[in-house]
Amino acid sequence: MAKAEKYRLAQIVERFGGEILGDPQTPISQVATLESAGAEHISFLTQGKYRKQLAGTGAGAVILGKADSGLTDLPRIICDEPYLYFAKVSALFNPPQAIKPGVHRTAIVERGARIPASASIGAGAYVGRRVKLGKGVVIGPGCHIGDGVEIGAVSRLHARVTIYPECRLGRRALVHSGAVIGADGFGIAQDHGAWRKIPQVGRVLIGDDVEIGANTCIDRGALDDTVVEDGVKLDNLIQIGHNVHIGAHTAIAGCTGIAGSSRIGKHCMIGGAVAIVGHLDIADRVIIHAAAVVTKSIRKAGTYGGHPAEDSLNWARNMARLRHIAALRERMRDIEQQLSLPKEKA
Amino acid sequence: MAKAEKYRLAQIVERFGGEILGDPQTPISQVATLESAGAEHISFLTQGKYRKQLAGTGAGAVILGKADSGLTDLPRIICDEPYLYFAKVSALFNPPQAIKPGVHRTAIVERGARIPASASIGAGAYVGRRVKLGKGVVIGPGCHIGDGVEIGAVSRLHARVTIYPECRLGRRALVHSGAVIGADGFGIAQDHGAWRKIPQVGRVLIGDDVEIGANTCIDRGALDDTVVEDGVKLDNLIQIGHNVHIGAHTAIAGCTGIAGSSRIGKHCMIGGAVAIVGHLDIADRVIIHAAAVVTKSIRKAGTYGGHPAEDSLNWARNMARLRHIAALRERMRDIEQQLSLPKEKA
Amino acid sequence: MAKAEKYRLAQIVERFGGEILGDPQTPISQVATLESAGAEHISFLTQGKYRKQLAGTGAGAVILGKADSGLTDLPRIICDEPYLYFAKVSALFNPPQAIKPGVHRTAIVERGARIPASASIGAGAYVGRRVKLGKGVVIGPGCHIGDGVEIGAVSRLHARVTIYPECRLGRRALVHSGAVIGADGFGIAQDHGAWRKIPQVGRVLIGDDVEIGANTCIDRGALDDTVVEDGVKLDNLIQIGHNVHIGAHTAIAGCTGIAGSSRIGKHCMIGGAVAIVGHLDIADRVIIHAAAVVTKSIRKAGTYGGHPAEDSLNWARNMARLRHIAALRERMRDIEQQLSLPKEKA
Repeated sequence: MAKAEKYRLAQIVERFGGEILGDPQTPISQVATLESAGAEHISFLTQGKYRKQLAGTGAGAVILGKADSGLTDLPRIICDEPYLYFAKVSALFNPPQAIKPGVHRTAIVERGARIPASASIGAGAYVGRRVKLGKGVVIGPGCHIGDGVEIGAVSRLHARVTIYPECRLGRRALVHSGAVIGADGFGIAQDHGAWRKIPQVGRVLIGDDVEIGANTCIDRGALDDTVVEDGVKLDNLIQIGHNVHIGAHTAIAGCTGIAGSSRIGKHCMIGGAVAIVGHLDIADRVIIHAAAVVTKSIRKAGTYGGHPAEDSLNWARNMARLRHIAALRERMRDIEQQLSLPKEKA
Repeated sequence: MAKAEKYRLAQIVERFGGEILGDPQTPISQVATLESAGAEHISFLTQGKYRKQLAGTGAGAVILGKADSGLTDLPRIICDEPYLYFAKVSALFNPPQAIKPGVHRTAIVERGARIPASASIGAGAYVGRRVKLGKGVVIGPGCHIGDGVEIGAVSRLHARVTIYPECRLGRRALVHSGAVIGADGFGIAQDHGAWRKIPQVGRVLIGDDVEIGANTCIDRGALDDTVVEDGVKLDNLIQIGHNVHIGAHTAIAGCTGIAGSSRIGKHCMIGGAVAIVGHLDIADRVIIHAAAVVTKSIRKAGTYGGHPAEDSLNWARNMARLRHIAALRERMRDIEQQLSLPKEKA
Repeated sequence: MAKAEKYRLAQIVERFGGEILGDPQTPISQVATLESAGAEHISFLTQGKYRKQLAGTGAGAVILGKADSGLTDLPRIICDEPYLYFAKVSALFNPPQAIKPGVHRTAIVERGARIPASASIGAGAYVGRRVKLGKGVVIGPGCHIGDGVEIGAVSRLHARVTIYPECRLGRRALVHSGAVIGADGFGIAQDHGAWRKIPQVGRVLIGDDVEIGANTCIDRGALDDTVVEDGVKLDNLIQIGHNVHIGAHTAIAGCTGIAGSSRIGKHCMIGGAVAIVGHLDIADRVIIHAAAVVTKSIRKAGTYGGHPAEDSLNWARNMARLRHIAALRERMRDIEQQLSLPKEKA
């Protein structure tokens, strides 16, 4: 991260809104957690469980929701959404590292690639034929950009990302190390006891403002394309099968797998280690708990969980019910005794 | 993919068999889905749910099973296994990219490596000592091939694959980016509160016609070798522990983990996100549903699922039974009331 | 592995203790499994299920626990912990490969990096500014070491490891290919239907004697640091979220994911494919079964499993109870018939 500047509370509120309680001239040089903050740090409180830490914090100022404004005497910014406010303040103090335009002398750029002067190609990176990069794109050291790939302006690939041929990334993408975009989908046909590979000739099309985590894989389509819409956020070690379609502004946590041809709606939140089988439809605004196993389409916004996944209240209720079985059997025995029915083995 | 040639229906049937209904001179230049096909495309129908799309397709021809031959008036090829037939036709129109033999000037090839003139070593790849490559092998840019590795003819490693020393790949392997073959197995022994590493001195031995997905890991054996037999197909982000043995023609979907020393039979189909614990035996022709947790050996061909995995019908039945518990408790209360038994808490 | 020397049983016992039964001059050149051992190999027995193999082994000698000392007439070492003993003997016969100090001519080392003469930087590796390596550190071919990273003495990174800026690894680390240390945590805030990224400005701090498996990811902290204490062993394809804290000497098997800000105790053993949600506390000496889904803090040492995870005996009991439901329903019907209650639908 670049060296942060210093701001006064008043300057922060000028940018992002909110109300100051306490000294508006309080100087702030960085964001920090309540636990580790020092006198020039601004911290925040979003969950009740951290109130105890607020009492003992060494922070110079804090960001609080309206309901919490009286919890401290520290200089504070009162706002509607303290976590979002904190996100903005943190971005102010931690701007992305400045890029050094140019092609590293050890990078390989094949003929026909279009690299604007504002782009940066790192050491040992490989850029294939007909690749087209937007302004200010950063290709990290050791990246592999296949033939015909297009990447929109201001996108940033960390070290050692792989993009297979013909895939498209939109603007302001952020891709972490080890991610593999556009490898073959898992398309095989039974051929008398052996497997015959089905060529995977679709592409991966990725919208604007997408983040892709470390070692995450997004397979290319079999015939049509795999699509990730604008604003999607993918954590690490996620597997997106061929011809999956992920709607705009959906966020997916790590270790989740989505099998081929499933369609995920917009504004969904999918927990970590979720498994979604192939050829399903998931509606918009669906929330799926961590480690759920989704085996049927979900047609309605709501919260789902379990194995197999269902309305998440049901799953919790069912798991609780398991504990009733032992008691039910006891009561059954009592009744049978009273009725002198023969005891069964179960 | 290389530029596709054009074929007439009659030429396709000449190669792959089947029967033509409609004009045998219909020209075809590519395969496509029913939904996106144009006049020079051939499409296919394998699942009933896509019949509606058949009615509206713009395809010039379609591949159909015998039972479906009357569903359209379009020129069509009627055959026994339309998905397999489509696989063959797609391979005809989408041959693998031609390779450019030779060693890229930025590749490092250590002394004693045997690289035939027909092989291709990409930019920045590293090829260790005593490595032996078969004819026509392609080592993608940025790959790392450890000392003593042997790779059979016509195998193709995409960019940034890692093979640890002494491992063997058979002929016609296809390995995707980020795959790691031959890293140490997870072998540690308790040593009075700390862990002591057990050297992993086995190898990974991989047969012919094996495909390995992006970021998949296959660990080397602890003492003996980890073995993947001919024709095995592995999707992305799979973990294969040390000394696992995978029988021929088994296919495994993404995010699955197989712990050390388990033996998987031949012709198995293992779904995505499955967990198989260590030291188990799985019989030939076992099908395991996505996200199953296999904690015991499976001695019999069949279909299994759930957590813990069992015969998959049982698992579905058990999960359905959970929903009966609430009703059972209601009925129990009615009986107890009628019998004037004391109501228990459960 | 380097060429192994030959030792006599007596020399082995001199180093590691234990008692010899049979000829102390028996020459040993390598360790092997009971099944594949030859006359100059020493093997071992730790699990009863391999007794049959002991009878038929071709080994020249074996390592046995006291209770098993009479199971064979072969020359043998009798000791308290045969698996640990074997680990030591295997390390004797399989020392790590000697390193060749120096910087490969194709490696990039930026200004200000401190590389001792005893360190080894592989082909095509990238070492950023202000990087500080301890004595004898090995950076494998194609590794990426970000600005300001520090790595302790004798640590060894296999090919193609990525370390993001400012992270710290202790001494004697062993990191496998494809591992990504210090990528951004998954920190996003809702912003009126879109997601706003929260800069991830913490680091990853890793203690001494830590092993990190292939393609495993450890995210940097959001504000404070992600911490992995001394002696932790991580298998392949593990995801460690931002601000996770893993206590000393905990071992975690492959495909496991730990979500942000969870704290794992010391001396825990976490099985493969486990999911641990965020912001939990797991006590010291907790054992978690493979594929468990941990949704609540675990305050007490013990063994846990299931989905959701609970005391692992309970989970097994609950899953067994499912099978009782069908029988309970049958018995309920009998009672209702006898009482002439109306049959309900459930």
